[in-house]
Amino acid sequence: MHDTRTPVMDALVEFVLGLETAAVPPAVVEAAGRSITDWLGTAIRGSAEPLADAIGAVIRATGGEPQATVVGRSVRTSALMACLANGAQSHALDFDDTHLPSIVHGAAPVAPVVLALGEWRHLSGADALAAFIAGFEVETRIGRVLGRKLADRGWHVTGVLGHFGAAAAAGKLLGLDHARLAHALGIAGTQAAGLEQSFGTMSKPLHPGKAAMNGLLAAMLAREGFTGSTAMLDAPHGLAGTFLGITDIGRAAEDLGKRFELLENSTKGYAACHLTHASIDAARAIRARSAPAAEAVESIVCRVHPLTLKVADNRAPRTGLEAKFSIAFCTAVGLLRGDAGEAEFDDASVRDDAVARVMARVAPEADTALGIGAATMTVRLADGRVLEERITAARGTPGNPLTRDELETKFRRLAAVVLPATRVERLVETLRRLADVSDVAELAALAAR
Amino acid sequence: MHDTRTPVMDALVEFVLGLETAAVPPAVVEAAGRSITDWLGTAIRGSAEPLADAIGAVIRATGGEPQATVVGRSVRTSALMACLANGAQSHALDFDDTHLPSIVHGAAPVAPVVLALGEWRHLSGADALAAFIAGFEVETRIGRVLGRKLADRGWHVTGVLGHFGAAAAAGKLLGLDHARLAHALGIAGTQAAGLEQSFGTMSKPLHPGKAAMNGLLAAMLAREGFTGSTAMLDAPHGLAGTFLGITDIGRAAEDLGKRFELLENSTKGYAACHLTHASIDAARAIRARSAPAAEAVESIVCRVHPLTLKVADNRAPRTGLEAKFSIAFCTAVGLLRGDAGEAEFDDASVRDDAVARVMARVAPEADTALGIGAATMTVRLADGRVLEERITAARGTPGNPLTRDELETKFRRLAAVVLPATRVERLVETLRRLADVSDVAELAALAAR
Repeated sequence: MHDTRTPVMDALVEFVLGLETAAVPPAVVEAAGRSITDWLGTAIRGSAEPLADAIGAVIRATGGEPQATVVGRSVRTSALMACLANGAQSHALDFDDTHLPSIVHGAAPVAPVVLALGEWRHLSGADALAAFIAGFEVETRIGRVLGRKLADRGWHVTGVLGHFGAAAAAGKLLGLDHARLAHALGIAGTQAAGLEQSFGTMSKPLHPGKAAMNGLLAAMLAREGFTGSTAMLDAPHGLAGTFLGITDIGRAAEDLGKRFELLENSTKGYAACHLTHASIDAARAIRARSAPAAEAVESIVCRVHPLTLKVADNRAPRTGLEAKFSIAFCTAVGLLRGDAGEAEFDDASVRDDAVARVMARVAPEADTALGIGAATMTVRLADGRVLEERITAARGTPGNPLTRDELETKFRRLAAVVLPATRVERLVETLRRLADVSDVAELAALAAR
Repeated sequence: MHDTRTPVMDALVEFVLGLETAAVPPAVVEAAGRSITDWLGTAIRGSAEPLADAIGAVIRATGGEPQATVVGRSVRTSALMACLANGAQSHALDFDDTHLPSIVHGAAPVAPVVLALGEWRHLSGADALAAFIAGFEVETRIGRVLGRKLADRGWHVTGVLGHFGAAAAAGKLLGLDHARLAHALGIAGTQAAGLEQSFGTMSKPLHPGKAAMNGLLAAMLAREGFTGSTAMLDAPHGLAGTFLGITDIGRAAEDLGKRFELLENSTKGYAACHLTHASIDAARAIRARSAPAAEAVESIVCRVHPLTLKVADNRAPRTGLEAKFSIAFCTAVGLLRGDAGEAEFDDASVRDDAVARVMARVAPEADTALGIGAATMTVRLADGRVLEERITAARGTPGNPLTRDELETKFRRLAAVVLPATRVERLVETLRRLADVSDVAELAALAAR
């Protein structure tokens, strides 16, 4: 009944346990540091969202050993509950990073585990970085094989596969041996969940929070001898078989340690769904050439990858959250305001007449020839002018990354909503030298309100 | 994108909130009391299993307000963690009850929530019974539509659908209004998980523990204004659509409050897979007429429903756990020992020569004319005698229920492994008058070690 061949599981476990930052290309360690920085900014900022109040109330009621900080708040709780809160907070604004080839928000399920265990166990920044890289690679490698198919079927890829990333990072930091880490990944896989049906509700950001919590729970249980299916990734009726009818994910283990998914991570420069970013870039570029008034816009044809229309074609967003999944809205604010930061997704913007006027003139079209980070835009104005723009790599994607300065500016803007400016600067400085930090608890303390 | 029609959700929420034990047929309340009794016995007994030690260690590390008792152990922890432990413990021996039409182990995800909240909030036994009935009905009604299909695809039905039962019970006990209970069920559904791939490992019993914990978390979050998809049960891409491609589960809401799934619950009188029970009954009946020695048995033809052969035809079990899924083993111990309780599934029995001799002579045959709870048996003895028996409703199924005495005998045997006899008697007495208990904390205190 139970297949005993476990090549993918074995390869991933081996990779996770063997990974050391000193042996990883410096660009990968740098990408991990950037991802953690970006994640922490979104998680701190997310602490000011209503979802964080609700989770905070549950944490107050539940209690727990003060092991780990809920960032942006003045609470320390069990590592498990801190993972729940921090993972959810970081995804609350849909502003955290995305590994587009897998559609996994890679940091959101893994970084909470690394921060919580790092603080609780007083681990070094180098250990934290190594565990983060391990977890990120595991979830995105599986995601490269399964991600698109999971999303097509209605699963939230980050929720489902984040379980493996979180368990891998936790298992590495808890010092599990090969057998126990395999059990941990089995225990994690059998908890994997998260439905796209929840998009537009607080349950979407709950998914990475739960993935982080469940993955940590899996590793903590495995450490105590708890068992799961070690064939979860390989057996015909394992996760891939049951979720999708796919019986072989061998590709997930190819080139382990040679090719790093972290180098293909994207950082959001805009506070909206990643799939809208190329359109925002195009609209901003057109604005930079000729900033038209709303009344001057006759029509906007926006050609994008088909997935963009599936996920982000809300034509009549009623809230800021819905507007983040509206290519029409995003194009309109890009054109009228020249940005699509947090400020553009408040309720006032959603009700703004000029935005609504332009939004009504946007006609998104699917174009299978375009990549996920690409778009073309044709704006026709009342005076007959036609403005065209083509984006091949949206800002924030690997082909057009944010500079470290831009990344830190984003971090400052997000963190400053919750924390005093001096503290934000100390965080920026500490994150810069994360690889040399001797105790992650230092970072966690700075992130508390 | 979001369907706003939610007829199934609305009907179930209405039913859960409106349910009062006084308005429910007495036989349903009695069935609920029996199910809770049976559940508590298995959960107390499960506290002596290795899985409970692992979960106990995680609870010790995690801490939490002492809200709820881990039964059979000397620990009080947060209601969330108590749900995890008690749900897992109760399913550890595969000895808890089963609602066969849905294949949901109905009590395992719901009773932990009822006991934890009942203790924490000092609720009455009547409230606990009402919430239990509500939760049981919700999960098994959805299971009547989706259960067999989920299992065919590789999902552990109890793990997946238990989330709804647990959230319904928790929401009712936490006093959620209609809107918030709908959100709670949405938050629960997006956490739904559990794979058959985990069968044979500790992760199988983990599933109802996680379902209980996640369902309670969903209700606690919803109480604080956290949102989920209220169309989780109705939308084309809700749970049924994503898991199975099924877009209508309207049947789950038919005859609500008129027909109760609890009346079709089965209680295990034997410590083996439900599908073996009719054969055990037949073997015991033959033994009662003429107890043959092992050497006297020439052949045993045992005809059963085809599913029984699919699930429980292990001809050479090496462990007690495997023996629970061996119709040959179960028939042999039924014939030779007149029972198939926990004692018959220890390692000594699996290695017993007489059992092995009879087991080798059992020839199971599929018979599509027989129901799941039916069997015919023909035993030929060396002296030429032929003994025949026909079972139409296995002991413990609705057509042939355990008497209250038999149920309490099972409870005593299970609980006495962990608790002193005097305490076991006080538990039996308290469970008998559960509807009149003023504070469930009284019951929980008796169940602690």
